Amino acid sequence: MTQQTPKSGTSGVIRVGILGCGNVGSALVGLINSNRDIIDGRSGVKLEIVRVAVRETTKDRGNEILPNVLTTDTVGLVNDPNVDVVVELIGGIEPARTLILSALKLGKPVITGNKELLASAGAELFEAAEAAGVDLLFEASVAGGIPLIRPLRESLAGERIKRVIGIVNGTTNFILTSMTEDATSFADALAEAQRLGFAEADPTADVEGFDAAAKAAIIASIAFGAKVVASDVYREGITQVTASDISAARDLGYVIKLLAVAEAVGEGENSSLAARVHPVMVPANHPLASVRGSFNAVFVQGDAIGDLMLYGRGAGGNPTAVAVLGDLIDAAKNLHSGARGATIGKLIDKPIVPIDDVRSQYYLTLDVADQPGVLAAIAGVFGKHMVSIQSMQQKGEASEAHLIFVTHLAWEADMMATISEVKDLAVVTRVGSFVRVIGEEA
Amino acid sequence: MTQQTPKSGTSGVIRVGILGCGNVGSALVGLINSNRDIIDGRSGVKLEIVRVAVRETTKDRGNEILPNVLTTDTVGLVNDPNVDVVVELIGGIEPARTLILSALKLGKPVITGNKELLASAGAELFEAAEAAGVDLLFEASVAGGIPLIRPLRESLAGERIKRVIGIVNGTTNFILTSMTEDATSFADALAEAQRLGFAEADPTADVEGFDAAAKAAIIASIAFGAKVVASDVYREGITQVTASDISAARDLGYVIKLLAVAEAVGEGENSSLAARVHPVMVPANHPLASVRGSFNAVFVQGDAIGDLMLYGRGAGGNPTAVAVLGDLIDAAKNLHSGARGATIGKLIDKPIVPIDDVRSQYYLTLDVADQPGVLAAIAGVFGKHMVSIQSMQQKGEASEAHLIFVTHLAWEADMMATISEVKDLAVVTRVGSFVRVIGEEA
Repeated sequence: MTQQTPKSGTSGVIRVGILGCGNVGSALVGLINSNRDIIDGRSGVKLEIVRVAVRETTKDRGNEILPNVLTTDTVGLVNDPNVDVVVELIGGIEPARTLILSALKLGKPVITGNKELLASAGAELFEAAEAAGVDLLFEASVAGGIPLIRPLRESLAGERIKRVIGIVNGTTNFILTSMTEDATSFADALAEAQRLGFAEADPTADVEGFDAAAKAAIIASIAFGAKVVASDVYREGITQVTASDISAARDLGYVIKLLAVAEAVGEGENSSLAARVHPVMVPANHPLASVRGSFNAVFVQGDAIGDLMLYGRGAGGNPTAVAVLGDLIDAAKNLHSGARGATIGKLIDKPIVPIDDVRSQYYLTLDVADQPGVLAAIAGVFGKHMVSIQSMQQKGEASEAHLIFVTHLAWEADMMATISEVKDLAVVTRVGSFVRVIGEEA
Repeated sequence: MTQQTPKSGTSGVIRVGILGCGNVGSALVGLINSNRDIIDGRSGVKLEIVRVAVRETTKDRGNEILPNVLTTDTVGLVNDPNVDVVVELIGGIEPARTLILSALKLGKPVITGNKELLASAGAELFEAAEAAGVDLLFEASVAGGIPLIRPLRESLAGERIKRVIGIVNGTTNFILTSMTEDATSFADALAEAQRLGFAEADPTADVEGFDAAAKAAIIASIAFGAKVVASDVYREGITQVTASDISAARDLGYVIKLLAVAEAVGEGENSSLAARVHPVMVPANHPLASVRGSFNAVFVQGDAIGDLMLYGRGAGGNPTAVAVLGDLIDAAKNLHSGARGATIGKLIDKPIVPIDDVRSQYYLTLDVADQPGVLAAIAGVFGKHMVSIQSMQQKGEASEAHLIFVTHLAWEADMMATISEVKDLAVVTRVGSFVRVIGEEA
């Protein structure tokens, strides 16, 4: 049944094998079928889907995939001599890792959108691709349909990147946007996100920042050519963000967002990296502040290029499939012409600084007894730890007051020491919220 | 003096000739010199600047360029067998066009940021590059440092693009932002822009939309693979935008921006294109609305990818030089490996619809006599021309009233007929402002 399949290289037909046919896979098949005219016209290659590996071959998939293309044999698909390019969309670490390594060893370019795998075994995969002299492309692994990996690797190939900060998880951005615009609680906003299909029944991976941390690791790896895995990324989720934090942020001219941050610390040979995911108060006029709902955006700061932001749909079958297809066409053209695309090569080892050694501004709320000398006592603790206060607001009535502080830039370790000591003051009833702040320096 | 220059292909050295050393050229030289480590590490090629063509070789250029590299002989630079790649940064149509065509014919890849040339002779240059089998890259020609051409050509290679709308002129965006945020007049905002160096002494090219129209032509060419030149682009500038329009827009929930629009009209074989530049009222929560000051942003709408926005510095030596350098590294790698990048190939001829056949929403203000029956008479004219009114606000006192209309989607021709007939009504003292509106449909 594969006898009539055209050979690679003749008439520009590239034969594609797809591992996995869920949301993204079926959208990809749909796009390849419906956009043949565009793909042929722009690239000069014809994509033919010759194998699609699925769990159940009997499931109805409309008219998009011929039944004889379906298989449950993933290893067979990779090894099939009629498959020129492999698209991996099954996700997770194994068997995806082994399948990708096998394909690369066979000289077959691989397209993947597998963030989990890249955030744990990226360095191994990049080296395998380099050794085999084969394309490994993964635009879809971060921020779905947004072109990010290609701009970082190619458009900014000659640029010294200082920092990348991104809204890379649509679920949490949807929740925070609801909390901001509709003044709902975290619990209500999460329930609404689940009802609309933006959050899963078990929302842990999203709301605790695991998904964003994997993407932060990939971004840091590409932006700085360094080995960064998900577990290197400092991580806090959004479950502690309260409606009153959101409202206090608004009063102060900020919006709260969950950000993935990857930044260079220091310069030259001895430079290190910081990679982290946590809620951040972003100035209301910052481009990231207006990224609403389930949209994603990545803000890049470079030495020469200044500020750059890439905004769009960070998830969903169709947008993600567009990213996969862009990579697939690239790999197919390279295969057809005997060329290779941009390579990552060997990721270098760079020190990753602990969160204690990061500098930021901070928002901190304290409930205190409303009596003379309280502010002096608290300010004394801040000063002792070299944390300078930028603004303080006092709210509340009767015997208790609510203090809202925003600090100037300070070391995280100093801020933590401040909080720890302030907590023990007799006049402090409760340490409320603590959120990092992006100021004009960032 | 060129004897010691390494040959192309040996040890990955690619010898670069640069035509023009103004703002962008000198920033490019600086970047190549200071970012050697990054360029070598990421790309595996070494860029060596072997020739820089300038008007005056005696001008002091710091230590960035060796004196024996400078020349006034542009033709000699292109023909120099020691030059592997040509970067054209002299701008204008001639001699840039002839120099680029010569370089391509000699098999030398060309990088250019020349929007004027591409917006008039793009099709000729793309065909020459295709015929010669050589890279012609031009990321810097639209929106400076923002990766746009590469994402359109590569990341969205498999996507059906519906519309591209962009803030592609920093001068006018700076002026409109000042008018919006500081409630200044157009004249004052322009004077401030000139004082700060964001606008030239003769601001015509910017404020009348010529610069944006050239970029719209390039965007339309790339997004739709069609032959579109600057003179095909319908064009209005911002000189007619008043402080009261800005304030009325704010009251209605909009921000006024000068947009370049390129869109597909209809589908398939018989589809046509619209390309235009004019002020637009953009909803305040639209991502383009928060693009402030001299920043640029391009908003892409595709069938499958949905909304995408690319934001950054649209001008300036350093940001533009980053775009040129990304292209240069790409071309150098291709030259080194014997491959080719994405090609544009032959642009097809597509009908370009006149502005009359475009559909939009409209904002229109009228000064009218404040007497019974006025609104009925005006509404009757709107209705007769099939223009449906979405909202009407009445302001003013005593004998004269000021009416502010926003229409639903209507054909431009119908709207023009409406205005023409309304103007002749005895009760209408004056037709005030007319601005196209992007609504939820766009």
